[in-house]
Amino acid sequence: MTKRTILRWGAAAGCFLLASATIAAQGRAARREPTPNDTLVSPDVQPDHRVTFRIYAPKASEVTLSGDWMEGSGAGPQRLEKDDKGVWSVTVGPLVPDFYSYTLTVDGVKTIDPKNAQIKQGVTSNDNLFEVPGEEAAFEATQMVPHGTVRIEWYSSSTLDMPRRMHIYTPPGYDRGNQRYPVLYLLHGGGDEDSGWSTIGRAGFIMDNLLAQKKAKPMLVVMPNGSMPRAANAPAGAPGGGAAAQDRFAGELLKDIIPFVEKNYRVLANRENRAITGLSMGGGQTLRVAPTNLDKFAFIGVWSSGVSQQAQADFEKRNADFLSNPDKTNKMLKLLWIGVGEKDPLANTSAKNLVALLDQHGIKHEFHESPGAHTWINWRHYLNDYAQLLFR
Amino acid sequence: MTKRTILRWGAAAGCFLLASATIAAQGRAARREPTPNDTLVSPDVQPDHRVTFRIYAPKASEVTLSGDWMEGSGAGPQRLEKDDKGVWSVTVGPLVPDFYSYTLTVDGVKTIDPKNAQIKQGVTSNDNLFEVPGEEAAFEATQMVPHGTVRIEWYSSSTLDMPRRMHIYTPPGYDRGNQRYPVLYLLHGGGDEDSGWSTIGRAGFIMDNLLAQKKAKPMLVVMPNGSMPRAANAPAGAPGGGAAAQDRFAGELLKDIIPFVEKNYRVLANRENRAITGLSMGGGQTLRVAPTNLDKFAFIGVWSSGVSQQAQADFEKRNADFLSNPDKTNKMLKLLWIGVGEKDPLANTSAKNLVALLDQHGIKHEFHESPGAHTWINWRHYLNDYAQLLFR
Repeated sequence: MTKRTILRWGAAAGCFLLASATIAAQGRAARREPTPNDTLVSPDVQPDHRVTFRIYAPKASEVTLSGDWMEGSGAGPQRLEKDDKGVWSVTVGPLVPDFYSYTLTVDGVKTIDPKNAQIKQGVTSNDNLFEVPGEEAAFEATQMVPHGTVRIEWYSSSTLDMPRRMHIYTPPGYDRGNQRYPVLYLLHGGGDEDSGWSTIGRAGFIMDNLLAQKKAKPMLVVMPNGSMPRAANAPAGAPGGGAAAQDRFAGELLKDIIPFVEKNYRVLANRENRAITGLSMGGGQTLRVAPTNLDKFAFIGVWSSGVSQQAQADFEKRNADFLSNPDKTNKMLKLLWIGVGEKDPLANTSAKNLVALLDQHGIKHEFHESPGAHTWINWRHYLNDYAQLLFR
Repeated sequence: MTKRTILRWGAAAGCFLLASATIAAQGRAARREPTPNDTLVSPDVQPDHRVTFRIYAPKASEVTLSGDWMEGSGAGPQRLEKDDKGVWSVTVGPLVPDFYSYTLTVDGVKTIDPKNAQIKQGVTSNDNLFEVPGEEAAFEATQMVPHGTVRIEWYSSSTLDMPRRMHIYTPPGYDRGNQRYPVLYLLHGGGDEDSGWSTIGRAGFIMDNLLAQKKAKPMLVVMPNGSMPRAANAPAGAPGGGAAAQDRFAGELLKDIIPFVEKNYRVLANRENRAITGLSMGGGQTLRVAPTNLDKFAFIGVWSSGVSQQAQADFEKRNADFLSNPDKTNKMLKLLWIGVGEKDPLANTSAKNLVALLDQHGIKHEFHESPGAHTWINWRHYLNDYAQLLFR
């Protein structure tokens, strides 16, 4: 009656371990006493919007906290204080209701909060996340409204000759019916990857909430991985956002990503129904692709990015047609939406220089200066404002 | 020509910071010297399948490594050794090609590896992941084959009165055509959530690779969140896998999850085309739901779980119809697949006791004993073997 098998798929693990380490560790495990760590809560978000961070590190000599709400404030990492049980803590705020990211540094080692499983993954490291709930964060919160779907898609990239991943948001009801939708191609910044807009960026929730209030047109949001693997012939130290990487991404976008989306999804495949938008490195990628491809994109967003004075001559040369025919450009451009935080280091060096350049050439655009710095706090708000203007 | 706006959506952040901390931190940032951390690689997987872990922690007095490949080996955490630059390291292996999880503990603080962005999220903490590539791991690797889609779905749970999330794998080609598919409901273990089967569990890749070789029937794999929020009236200290939580999950599955899937996806909504399978806590949930719902499920998998002698009387009482009518049960059951690792603490206490109970009542089943312990190393292999038998 019973079919019995013994499965064998590899050597038993563990034989490489040193016997001394083994015995010592077993001894430790058996002796383990309760510690304050067992019941520690961190972060502890209080009703008054103050937030307490705690970490049990009795042997540490310094613990500091870095959070994205500190950026642009002139403040650096904040020190935690140790109590007599070895628990370090600090209370910040009150913070404006929103989502925030942070890391802890224990004796010089940057780490995530061991008590907080909510994280934002990057290419080489992770940050923790937390929510301060409240009215100001309602636009990005997980609400009891109809939810679209975020799809994790792997595709074979011909440009990069490897499997690559993107995240795609489809609006509620996409799977029922035969409607075709416009597409926003939404790019992340340096150090991040394609999950960022769905974790710390909360793109799906922002779209869900806008759609529930009929404030935006239903659309797909395609969030590719803009962090390029290093080219075999790349010079050592070439930055991820450099021109060569931008061109590799442009090829990947135009030859792989957009064709994949238009083959596999019910989308409106024309310029009036395509938007391209990116933040920071993704803003640079947008500026690399969009002005020379107005036949493909009618809506452009450039966030926390721009054109530096140093790069201006090259930009003008490569985009001569875009800049020197304002009548034609302005007729094709449905929207060019530039946003930057007033505390963003790139505000004066790049974003405002781009605005001046566009003014000089008579290219129509919107310029939105917000509070804050070079952080996701801004980019979520920009998406909320910008998505309402698309495909109108 | 330029539309300019000043956005205001909250108070400027940072005003709560102490001036002294601010100035000290700015001083530190300005003075920052290069450290060995800047170029540190961890984990460093070598061609001979040995793996070196490194962390820069010059002030630490003890760093240890815990990995799932150690489980069941009798080994506990392994110590790292510090060099004169403050870099701690240890080399393990060679390891059988596979995916592995680990954490580091620095002076008693459990943390993830700051240099490794690959993680598996849990309910309250995270583990790092890495791959040792090789032939033995080909079944679960990201290959250049057609890929299905993993969809992150939020739905409104009537049982729990909150937005809840599940992950759903749809096979390649799902979006083209009108075919209806069978469904595997695949449950995770205690401490995990619905992303686990798509990160450390690699369910989508395992299915992609099986389908590319035509070794499995195309199916949806629905991976719900089995970690129940604590009920308002739950006794303090009630375990997540306890009977009350199991019943809450059963309600959620039968009243919310399955109806959501069958409303929103093109699936075959009958017992011959539904499988339910879970590991550890999810195996307990499977045993709570499946035997009394054979009208809904013809395929059952119970992995690294079972029925303890202590729980046997209650199990027999609640499943009297299932156990006492073997002819009827065996006619309805297309497959009951039990798997456990020989080093799993539950092997002898629960899994083999379940097998004996089924033998005693004449209920047909398969029992697969594998190497290893209570780890995802086993569960990925079980999925690979089990999925090939489904819906035949």
